[in-house]
Amino acid sequence: MSKPAYEHPFRVALHDTDAAGVLFFAHLFRRAHDAYEAWMASLGFPLPEMIREGRIALPLVHAEADYRRPLRHGDGVQVEISIAALETSRFSIDYRFQTEQGTAATARTVHACIHPGEKGARPLPEPLHAMLRACQVN
Amino acid sequence: MSKPAYEHPFRVALHDTDAAGVLFFAHLFRRAHDAYEAWMASLGFPLPEMIREGRIALPLVHAEADYRRPLRHGDGVQVEISIAALETSRFSIDYRFQTEQGTAATARTVHACIHPGEKGARPLPEPLHAMLRACQVN
Amino acid sequence: MSKPAYEHPFRVALHDTDAAGVLFFAHLFRRAHDAYEAWMASLGFPLPEMIREGRIALPLVHAEADYRRPLRHGDGVQVEISIAALETSRFSIDYRFQTEQGTAATARTVHACIHPGEKGARPLPEPLHAMLRACQVN
Amino acid sequence: MSKPAYEHPFRVALHDTDAAGVLFFAHLFRRAHDAYEAWMASLGFPLPEMIREGRIALPLVHAEADYRRPLRHGDGVQVEISIAALETSRFSIDYRFQTEQGTAATARTVHACIHPGEKGARPLPEPLHAMLRACQVN
Repeated sequence: MSKPAYEHPFRVALHDTDAAGVLFFAHLFRRAHDAYEAWMASLGFPLPEMIREGRIALPLVHAEADYRRPLRHGDGVQVEISIAALETSRFSIDYRFQTEQGTAATARTVHACIHPGEKGARPLPEPLHAMLRACQVN
Repeated sequence: MSKPAYEHPFRVALHDTDAAGVLFFAHLFRRAHDAYEAWMASLGFPLPEMIREGRIALPLVHAEADYRRPLRHGDGVQVEISIAALETSRFSIDYRFQTEQGTAATARTVHACIHPGEKGARPLPEPLHAMLRACQVN
Repeated sequence: MSKPAYEHPFRVALHDTDAAGVLFFAHLFRRAHDAYEAWMASLGFPLPEMIREGRIALPLVHAEADYRRPLRHGDGVQVEISIAALETSRFSIDYRFQTEQGTAATARTVHACIHPGEKGARPLPEPLHAMLRACQVN
Repeated sequence: MSKPAYEHPFRVALHDTDAAGVLFFAHLFRRAHDAYEAWMASLGFPLPEMIREGRIALPLVHAEADYRRPLRHGDGVQVEISIAALETSRFSIDYRFQTEQGTAATARTVHACIHPGEKGARPLPEPLHAMLRACQVN
């Protein structure tokens, strides 16, 4: 795997776990989105402003995850982000959840660009597309 | 305690629990809000419409809970709602979390009436105030 | 699509949504798991007992979802469950999130049977395998 | 207010907010617990080990919060922790959620010391009591 475009650390919190003693699977997606938010802000495209301005939105059209090893309360995790695909009006992000024991899980999210209130996908704004392209070639 | 104004059942889900094997305390407030939403809809004041219309909002200004017995995965819980206080521009809701073993927890939420975008509390709309008053005397 | 093996209703709660006004994608998986828990209990294999007894576990090894239409606060949703695949030591569940406007989302979870503390997948207990097979042919 | 015993930063994530555009009240308690976990680890009493060892537990018996200003997606928040009360077998933690605009919310959690499987509260282990006492006098 190539060098990740971004890395985001977190520690598995008590509220990430369930009575089976391990991270509840749906919370992996919450943690992935935290990494995505931090990454977008670091690129100069903070989601809070994008959502408040309301000109474009990047809703998820697909999400998936593969769970290889259980994540336990207190585990230190590094989320490695890379761009899996970049098209005119959508992009895919890969997430790798790394611990000292190796890769605990991987995930992917696919985002489409829309104009809120209008139908169908729209081209990504050129500055955002250019930035994602730059992340991809790294 | 007087007859509750409303009752709302739920079963403790896996995602309500944590690695200590019991309901994570913050999720009790999520479950309380579910009961509050269902109750408001049953009174003819559905929150989704209120929030979409945006003329008034009823944000929480206070929340508290007392935990008496642990709630475990699979426990059947009845949330009993009653009105603890009703003022011109705010109201307090009491929640009692009942299981077969008795009361597992109690909670209270205090809601103020505001006009989004304006400062300070406003009187509750008269139809809502009247309905809450009617629930109170039951 | 064939008749679902199970149906589970829910209403999109305020805490399911985010500041973009629609269901936050990760919460779809929480709602899917609620349907899965209710279905397993209806089949006579309640997860809470399975987890407490600790002889077998059915951890998720994969989860995915496709989001077709945004789900909004207050939307009534019927989760339709069916069995996508059944093997000796794992099974896949399909979820269809139906609203009055049609299918808002679909999801899939893949569960492997393990013996906690031991390595590798184990055959599903025969009574559970038989029950899932029976659901499949319906 | 005296100097906090610990400070823990976070940024309001999309999943912290709801369709009303602000932090959903129950998530404040999740964020408070994150600060509590980080603080306990910094003191040398990591919760994950405590829960896994199972000799003592510090379950919440009470939680409350006052919401002064809405927290919005992207807001930077500093959680200031201090010890509100310390008794033989329980302690209370105060949380102050500070933003650039001032205090957005305050919260309190009350923890009792128990021995899992036994009835009633037990004295806090002396090393933990001593550490909390030291934090209190700062």
